[in-house]
Amino acid sequence: MTFPIRFVLCETSHPGNIGAAARALKTMGFSELVLVNPLDYPSAEAVARAAGATDVLANARVVASLDEALEGCGMVVGTSARRRSLQWPELNPRECAAEALLAAETQPVAVLFGTERAGLQNEQMDRCNALVYIPANPAYSSLNLSAAVQLIAYELHFAGLNFEPPPEPEYSLATAEKMELFYEHLQRIMLSTGFLNPDNPRNVMRKLRRLFNRARLDEHELQILRGLLAAVEPDAKRAVRPARRERSGGSDQAS
Amino acid sequence: MTFPIRFVLCETSHPGNIGAAARALKTMGFSELVLVNPLDYPSAEAVARAAGATDVLANARVVASLDEALEGCGMVVGTSARRRSLQWPELNPRECAAEALLAAETQPVAVLFGTERAGLQNEQMDRCNALVYIPANPAYSSLNLSAAVQLIAYELHFAGLNFEPPPEPEYSLATAEKMELFYEHLQRIMLSTGFLNPDNPRNVMRKLRRLFNRARLDEHELQILRGLLAAVEPDAKRAVRPARRERSGGSDQAS
Repeated sequence: MTFPIRFVLCETSHPGNIGAAARALKTMGFSELVLVNPLDYPSAEAVARAAGATDVLANARVVASLDEALEGCGMVVGTSARRRSLQWPELNPRECAAEALLAAETQPVAVLFGTERAGLQNEQMDRCNALVYIPANPAYSSLNLSAAVQLIAYELHFAGLNFEPPPEPEYSLATAEKMELFYEHLQRIMLSTGFLNPDNPRNVMRKLRRLFNRARLDEHELQILRGLLAAVEPDAKRAVRPARRERSGGSDQAS
Repeated sequence: MTFPIRFVLCETSHPGNIGAAARALKTMGFSELVLVNPLDYPSAEAVARAAGATDVLANARVVASLDEALEGCGMVVGTSARRRSLQWPELNPRECAAEALLAAETQPVAVLFGTERAGLQNEQMDRCNALVYIPANPAYSSLNLSAAVQLIAYELHFAGLNFEPPPEPEYSLATAEKMELFYEHLQRIMLSTGFLNPDNPRNVMRKLRRLFNRARLDEHELQILRGLLAAVEPDAKRAVRPARRERSGGSDQAS
């Protein structure tokens, strides 16, 4: 799904940050970058830092005023490194994402980023419907500009995601009944080696059950463990191959 | 609140990314940076990109092996740009943050980042209890390394703001180095019993590593498994106390 969300960088000083911002946008599925009076642009450094997002960079719109940048937007959110005042609704990036996606249903949304050194100016904030505040270390809250773009874009992308089914598993999960056969086998070996106290085998077995149940073994993993148990089984060592023995071992387990 | 979370960058190519990672950590209130065999470090570019986080950079530990980097950690999470398989629990950054903070209550947690070009190698992922997957644009999911560090650190910081510690667990998680000793022991036994093909022990060992890493053993469970291995170890068998063996032999049918 594509959301009409526009990322507006105001008077950016370092072209590397512009390139890195383009890359950040593209990784999160956005492409609309607007540059208001960038100080040093176009630039080879911007291209280098854009990596595989040179298309987003090439399509970036350079404009001379915030008016141009915000044209058509129904909601404008300003990013702020520190808390400003109660004159704007203050959102964290997650709240911002939820609200921005809602707003973007009807009209484009702009997210505004100020300069590296000073952030947004008062006149720029005056254009905003809300401020988004990235929770940070109070002793050092100075995020890199492109890192802030990455965070906001990530929250927007995350909020906009639909469910994606995971890849088809290579092996099915082991069934409960096969797990029970495994536990019987394990206990038998632990008793026969003297590792388990035959008078009270339950505590250790319970620990091991919880461990393996938590891990949720697949068929293949269970097969490996059964093979391993068969290989270390004292009585069986000289005898038949492990897997065969288990299959024909009804009498063995019925005891 | 401070959480013992360690950010481990493996074989980073570009020193600028190391500096930017230090800055990203500090903005989110973290300070523990470990560099495994960085290609070009120390570096003036790293210092420049660290901005006000040169203290974090100066305190970064440079190590020659993942063993050193992971020492003492009870949980290891690997970052992955793409979905791998179902052999590891796959977390998004938000789920990762929640789990990591829980684990960090008892022991340090490591978050592993691979190289800029190729991400984590298989052997590095084999050390992980879980993988964290940053949801991204399927057509271009290549986040800058320091941007990925920023996102993970942000989610951890954000989760930490509302974190309520759980009740004290009965046992701590087994540390990375104790797990390595367990795997050595397991492999030795599998080789000595002939279960494992000595020419190609890696596939089965890798499956078992993933299984146990996924399960995230506590100290007590690990102790049980080590005891079990010791009990079935062929060379050690004669050392098992005879009284126990006789008793267990008699009650074998009780299984």
